[in-house]
Amino acid sequence: MGENDDDGEIIEHHDDEEMEKRNTPRNDSNSFLESLTPSERDGQRSTQPSHRLLAYSDALISIIATVMILPVAHTKFQNNEELKDSIQLLLTTKIAVYLMTFLIVTVAWAAHIRLFQVIESIDDTLALLNLACMMLITFLPYTFSLMATFPNNILGILLFCACVIVIGLIQAVIVVYGFSRPFLLNKHIQTSGNQAYYRRHILEVIMRVPIMCFFAAILSFIFFQLSYVLLAVIIFMPYISQSLKWIRDRAIGGQLDDTPDSMLFYSYHPSEPLSKERVEAFSDGVYAIVATLLILDICEDNVPDPSLVEKEFDGSLIMALQAYGPEYLAYFGSFATVGLLWFVHHSLFLHVTRATRLMGLFNTFSLAFIGGLPLAYQLTHEFPPGSRNELEAIQISCVIIFFAGLFQLAMWVTALFSERETLHPYVRYGGREHAFMFAKLSLYPCVALGTFFFTCILSRFSAFIFHLMQIAVPFAFLLLRLLVRVTLAVLRWLFCPARPDVGNTPAEEDDSRLPFNDIVT
Amino acid sequence: MGENDDDGEIIEHHDDEEMEKRNTPRNDSNSFLESLTPSERDGQRSTQPSHRLLAYSDALISIIATVMILPVAHTKFQNNEELKDSIQLLLTTKIAVYLMTFLIVTVAWAAHIRLFQVIESIDDTLALLNLACMMLITFLPYTFSLMATFPNNILGILLFCACVIVIGLIQAVIVVYGFSRPFLLNKHIQTSGNQAYYRRHILEVIMRVPIMCFFAAILSFIFFQLSYVLLAVIIFMPYISQSLKWIRDRAIGGQLDDTPDSMLFYSYHPSEPLSKERVEAFSDGVYAIVATLLILDICEDNVPDPSLVEKEFDGSLIMALQAYGPEYLAYFGSFATVGLLWFVHHSLFLHVTRATRLMGLFNTFSLAFIGGLPLAYQLTHEFPPGSRNELEAIQISCVIIFFAGLFQLAMWVTALFSERETLHPYVRYGGREHAFMFAKLSLYPCVALGTFFFTCILSRFSAFIFHLMQIAVPFAFLLLRLLVRVTLAVLRWLFCPARPDVGNTPAEEDDSRLPFNDIVT
Repeated sequence: MGENDDDGEIIEHHDDEEMEKRNTPRNDSNSFLESLTPSERDGQRSTQPSHRLLAYSDALISIIATVMILPVAHTKFQNNEELKDSIQLLLTTKIAVYLMTFLIVTVAWAAHIRLFQVIESIDDTLALLNLACMMLITFLPYTFSLMATFPNNILGILLFCACVIVIGLIQAVIVVYGFSRPFLLNKHIQTSGNQAYYRRHILEVIMRVPIMCFFAAILSFIFFQLSYVLLAVIIFMPYISQSLKWIRDRAIGGQLDDTPDSMLFYSYHPSEPLSKERVEAFSDGVYAIVATLLILDICEDNVPDPSLVEKEFDGSLIMALQAYGPEYLAYFGSFATVGLLWFVHHSLFLHVTRATRLMGLFNTFSLAFIGGLPLAYQLTHEFPPGSRNELEAIQISCVIIFFAGLFQLAMWVTALFSERETLHPYVRYGGREHAFMFAKLSLYPCVALGTFFFTCILSRFSAFIFHLMQIAVPFAFLLLRLLVRVTLAVLRWLFCPARPDVGNTPAEEDDSRLPFNDIVT
Repeated sequence: MGENDDDGEIIEHHDDEEMEKRNTPRNDSNSFLESLTPSERDGQRSTQPSHRLLAYSDALISIIATVMILPVAHTKFQNNEELKDSIQLLLTTKIAVYLMTFLIVTVAWAAHIRLFQVIESIDDTLALLNLACMMLITFLPYTFSLMATFPNNILGILLFCACVIVIGLIQAVIVVYGFSRPFLLNKHIQTSGNQAYYRRHILEVIMRVPIMCFFAAILSFIFFQLSYVLLAVIIFMPYISQSLKWIRDRAIGGQLDDTPDSMLFYSYHPSEPLSKERVEAFSDGVYAIVATLLILDICEDNVPDPSLVEKEFDGSLIMALQAYGPEYLAYFGSFATVGLLWFVHHSLFLHVTRATRLMGLFNTFSLAFIGGLPLAYQLTHEFPPGSRNELEAIQISCVIIFFAGLFQLAMWVTALFSERETLHPYVRYGGREHAFMFAKLSLYPCVALGTFFFTCILSRFSAFIFHLMQIAVPFAFLLLRLLVRVTLAVLRWLFCPARPDVGNTPAEEDDSRLPFNDIVT
């Protein structure tokens, strides 16, 4: 029975194919040259949704953005050396490389998002071009390493510029290819009359960066210090041009009428929409890599040598592993902290209906701090208990957690500015989850700040306070809904016992509401 | 105006909240104990879609699955040593650890998929429990490292068993929690009458693994060799039990009537559906990590020391970097190969409408080979040109590419067995993309096989042939559609010039069709 059915189906398909062949008989057998320039119908047939290509690109870019923390983490500290000196040594090169890489990679990522907001469907050629683009983006961190290690040698600058120029050219090819096959484009552009205008505008924006890099490369032969400045300008150019435009628009006002459509794409406006799915995918990638960074080291370095165990610990593996105890603690601690910060991010983005570029910027800052967290945790356990180094390492961890959490909070505050477009009603002012979301987002900054001050006062117990914090925070998240409810009830009872309907939002929220509204209007 | 609107909105929300409070006044202020046991309505309010939690879990698991190739890759080969000896040394411990980790992690991943096919929505508690589960899964590779380094010490076994038992307990807690809040469950179970049966069945399946691990842990004190066997049985248990069930069903036939619903979940049947999105997300993670594995090494190891450059190369950075040339080549080569294998996987899954467990198994095998690819590429360039070691390294690379591609092809063949459920009509037998998909999937196995035999015959030019293959394959993919069309036209002209409608599928496809149908029916 299955056989018969199968045959029936296959014959049906043959019929399909036959009909197809009658429509395009030339393509198949007669002329090879014609099949080199596929017809529009043929192209549409091989059109694919782009979401998986974008998810894969996000994964690659997030790995590259965070990988550069590894050389920082692998810098060995001597116990007799003061942490401050090491930190200064680190600050000069490795942390700078990490932050620069993170910034440039997120800029490349933002450009990639812009590109694939214009080109919504892909085909095989675009997928392969995108892979070539990714290959070059993943090579950028290495050029930064060269620049940081040999600041007086122009080879690093030249390599970096060469990569950026090729990436820009590939993106331009993608745009030209996309506009030559309009069914690949965004629906809005597809139906728009002035596709030629869009094409020119987008190509202009894309080619700006490679052209500036070309000049930076030439400049590096003459006066290489200046080309570093030029590269820094290129990195921050989107933000500079966007601020300039924004200020100009504010000053002149309503002057946007000649390019009404182009504002949707490549506008660099702070409220330019950003694909929420891609922000989530990129953040997930970074959180996942960062959470597992330390297991890399543990698996490689913390398996003792059998001969060493035999010689020094009389064959007792448990004794040998006890030496690594602090490193396991660092792994679990950083995994839990990164996991919980992901949890907060996840909770926030559940209620975000549309992301903007400014939110994306704060997200990037938050992720950049999170990337440094495993390193800070590792430092925490690397120094003898009670030493000055240990205290400073713990305080650095607190500062990193504080800023990572603070920028998450900043994302929410940014979203609240235009809450109607960006937030679900539940978490807007007065929404039923507003106070709970505020508590979730402010838990980590508050805890980190509290731990920081406690360790300042009770510096002898700093490690104990820090471990207590690590253990307590997951439970705090579990009980947070209850805690918020209790706090709200107490606040209501304290401040407005007569009017229970006003006290829905906590008092501090009501206080902060007015200035926000003032700024918005 | 904005101010007024905002106020209006806020007042509206206050009204909402007021109404809400009238419905549940007790929860907010009077009784704290009642808010500890949240009402069903309250729970439903905080229910969240689970897709991002699953994507994050997939990212974490894919990182852990591939990370264990790094210790293998970091094993240094001496140039005067024979590769065969090194390979044997590697095979004994590190590759075994890598493959075991890959297998156990994918088994954990399969269990995670089963769990979250039952529990379709999550809330904060489940998200936190899942993070705890992930933390333990990411620790598993370390226990394998211990086992491999100290095969005679039971500590590794005990640690592994402890992790698995805790993971099983957390999963059991998640199931119990999910069934206590039925709105979190799969719609099918939610509407089913016998939830208690489902709960018992699922808990039984979940607890089987931790209980067996518990016995393995006890056994390790008495006769630890046997507990390794028991652990291997546990790893392959799903496949063993599934095969046994499948054989029993075949033998007895139609004996499934007493548990008609349970077959949907935790059935371990080869055709049990597998979430296609999760297979894609997991594969994307593995491909992304593997593609960038070598950049980790390049950024850490291939930045020369400034003093060394000054001393040995007279300050010429270019001269110093030329020594690293082969490693850049290895990076770009492995990135391109992994990227193109991803591209093939992507093309296949575009046309897969439903994934099955058996396809997932072949996907896992393919990914396990891909994980070893960067290592093989690195080896290729580590030996002096023309040496026997270089030839063997190139041949190993070819074998790895061959098997990675072959298992991708096996996925498609598996899908063709039940093409109506699993494949898009375009790629079924006689579909218009059938031949093109076949060509895409068989390109890499064919090229790898060809390169392998060419290097056997022309062993002196093996490196040249290998590099030529690396450069040619991306272009082959670009021109593949044209090539397939030409081949089909030639085949049609050669074999059946009179009946052009029969020759749609290539001759070899028609040959292979009959046996498949015979097996299926």
